[in-house]
Amino acid sequence: MTRPFLSFLTDFGERATAPGVCRGVMWGICPEARILDLTHSVTAFSIREGAFLLWSTIGYLPVGVHVAVVDPGVGTVRRPIVIRAKRGDLLVGPDNGLLRPAAARLGGVAEARLAANRALWLAETSANFHGRDIFSPVAAHLANGTALEEVGPPLATDMLVDLELPAATVRRGRLETAVVFIDRFGNCRLAGDLPDLVAALGEMAAGQRLAVHLAAAHHEVVWSPTFGLVDPGRALLYRDGDTAGLALAINQGSAAEHFGLELGDLVRIETA
Amino acid sequence: MTRPFLSFLTDFGERATAPGVCRGVMWGICPEARILDLTHSVTAFSIREGAFLLWSTIGYLPVGVHVAVVDPGVGTVRRPIVIRAKRGDLLVGPDNGLLRPAAARLGGVAEARLAANRALWLAETSANFHGRDIFSPVAAHLANGTALEEVGPPLATDMLVDLELPAATVRRGRLETAVVFIDRFGNCRLAGDLPDLVAALGEMAAGQRLAVHLAAAHHEVVWSPTFGLVDPGRALLYRDGDTAGLALAINQGSAAEHFGLELGDLVRIETA
Amino acid sequence: MTRPFLSFLTDFGERATAPGVCRGVMWGICPEARILDLTHSVTAFSIREGAFLLWSTIGYLPVGVHVAVVDPGVGTVRRPIVIRAKRGDLLVGPDNGLLRPAAARLGGVAEARLAANRALWLAETSANFHGRDIFSPVAAHLANGTALEEVGPPLATDMLVDLELPAATVRRGRLETAVVFIDRFGNCRLAGDLPDLVAALGEMAAGQRLAVHLAAAHHEVVWSPTFGLVDPGRALLYRDGDTAGLALAINQGSAAEHFGLELGDLVRIETA
Repeated sequence: MTRPFLSFLTDFGERATAPGVCRGVMWGICPEARILDLTHSVTAFSIREGAFLLWSTIGYLPVGVHVAVVDPGVGTVRRPIVIRAKRGDLLVGPDNGLLRPAAARLGGVAEARLAANRALWLAETSANFHGRDIFSPVAAHLANGTALEEVGPPLATDMLVDLELPAATVRRGRLETAVVFIDRFGNCRLAGDLPDLVAALGEMAAGQRLAVHLAAAHHEVVWSPTFGLVDPGRALLYRDGDTAGLALAINQGSAAEHFGLELGDLVRIETA
Repeated sequence: MTRPFLSFLTDFGERATAPGVCRGVMWGICPEARILDLTHSVTAFSIREGAFLLWSTIGYLPVGVHVAVVDPGVGTVRRPIVIRAKRGDLLVGPDNGLLRPAAARLGGVAEARLAANRALWLAETSANFHGRDIFSPVAAHLANGTALEEVGPPLATDMLVDLELPAATVRRGRLETAVVFIDRFGNCRLAGDLPDLVAALGEMAAGQRLAVHLAAAHHEVVWSPTFGLVDPGRALLYRDGDTAGLALAINQGSAAEHFGLELGDLVRIETA
Repeated sequence: MTRPFLSFLTDFGERATAPGVCRGVMWGICPEARILDLTHSVTAFSIREGAFLLWSTIGYLPVGVHVAVVDPGVGTVRRPIVIRAKRGDLLVGPDNGLLRPAAARLGGVAEARLAANRALWLAETSANFHGRDIFSPVAAHLANGTALEEVGPPLATDMLVDLELPAATVRRGRLETAVVFIDRFGNCRLAGDLPDLVAALGEMAAGQRLAVHLAAAHHEVVWSPTFGLVDPGRALLYRDGDTAGLALAINQGSAAEHFGLELGDLVRIETA
């Protein structure tokens, strides 16, 4: 029998003891668990960034229980929930939209429950550390075989807070997209993947010149499968393999700074 | 039968290979171990910070073997020790006070031993990496079932180097406390928890004005359960859920910088 | 039966989701694996630094499968390979020299194979994330018991890209060495270990004055077993326990900056 699998994504920071404490709580309840830290470096309180990172990675993980905590509403009325996705995974976290894109990627929401059963929480709960006191123990009990119905009452899917990541729209002669993630180098991951670009603009060859229209200005960039093909300081559009999609970068620089881009900004791509 | 549990806290840094090498040594000796990295980001050589972080987190971890290495005296006469706490845990590390507060939190010291048995060390030991050469292998042998007596001769508890974390003292109309930890945001964790504050000053309501007396000056702050209730740049006293105690912060700023606070500084809190 | 052991070293960065995604792929294929993250903080694209860190640590790890990915040539013709070392370990990564010093440390190359069998890759592979799509799944299949011959055709050892880490040369009255690693503090690890220094210059006593000749200038430093014996700002030569070898440092400063040293720079050490 395969040992239970748990993944774990938060904005607690890699240097904090909080992720370790949560893993300690999980292992106290489910000693056989395999626990995978996906990242604890989500920008503090950025639900959209956490949702994107979970969405972009979860397809590569084994079926299991996934705990995600980016929770600016901790201590308020936002609800702790568990979503069962159609692939069979259980997603545990706050009802603030964080889990929805990942659930969609796993085939959609099959069932959702309010994590209201305090018998599955730690005996003592704090006002602001539900990752440790509620989400980790509930997830570990589920990994341990506790039935989903014991977690709490069902929630209608349309009662859950929704969050849709921006999508790319293919138009004749242009791709309309938006910034969905900015990495630590300032590379801007855009909605959509290479097939969307090809559908809009035709096959891409390395060096193909493109026009990128932002709110305030437009810029010429080149399509380049690798950074090595463009000069330092020059802009390129490429396919980011980590997150499986289009991205805008400055070779050896920060596209976010250079273009003044922020999460959610619209980007239109045409041939130059 | 539950697989052995080991926790691991050091000041080696998250980016170093040293924590991984130590885990490699542990798994070489105890292949079934579950190993939990609590943090490797303790400020270099800060025994007091390491002691506080271990003390504040260990209660959430399963009973097991806990390795902690913050060891400015490595290579000198300071002794490698193992403490058995009354909860049943074994604490492995240098005899410099690092392990004492955690042992107290686990019910106190039941037994202490000098880790003198070289058969439980790596065959070759270096002058300055006892984490790898002594503490990790000794801990892994213990996790593997080696009897505590085999580690080395007993040490009387009062022969161990002591370190007491500052405690809060409840006075009529004031709480006398001190800075026990400064996090990466500059938030200053103080000794004591909310019940101490209530014992000194009565029930706290959000927005309650308090006077904080430091060595050089005094300041007005408000009691606030969450950061969201105070304006950016304003000071607040709150309960930190991570470390389960009182803390002083500047919303979106650094209290350590603003107030010039350092580890160990005394703080007196009164109603304004 | 011992659970399979995998180690993992990359330049992906500790904050990225990429290491977690790769561990997810490994656990999907080999659910019983113990996976050890050695570091993901190798300087981006620095094959020599990755090779040094793997070489300096692998001797402390259990026999197993070791995945290393520092891969500036991803997406080009460089080959994915598996090396079986004489100790019994399997090394999985790009054929760019990264794995060679570690293989030498484990007794040398016993056998090498091209990882050409796509049945052991992920079904879909990207142009630039072979860590996830090729190296992790191949390693996990091997950890799972897949025979090495199934990986792909054999490669003659002399067909592999080689990379030799600089070695120290003992001369009468001097040690000729070079910078092999610069850590985050600017300490410069040199090729060779204390016995080489002793062979060249005789027994070392703490405080022994030495002359260090660099390309442009020479400097006086002292031999010191610990940093504590020299004043802040002063240079010392010491034995680094982490990586088991000689190193040049400035107490509380950066030797790399102070001396203008870079990876590969030659250093000659004589008595002053």
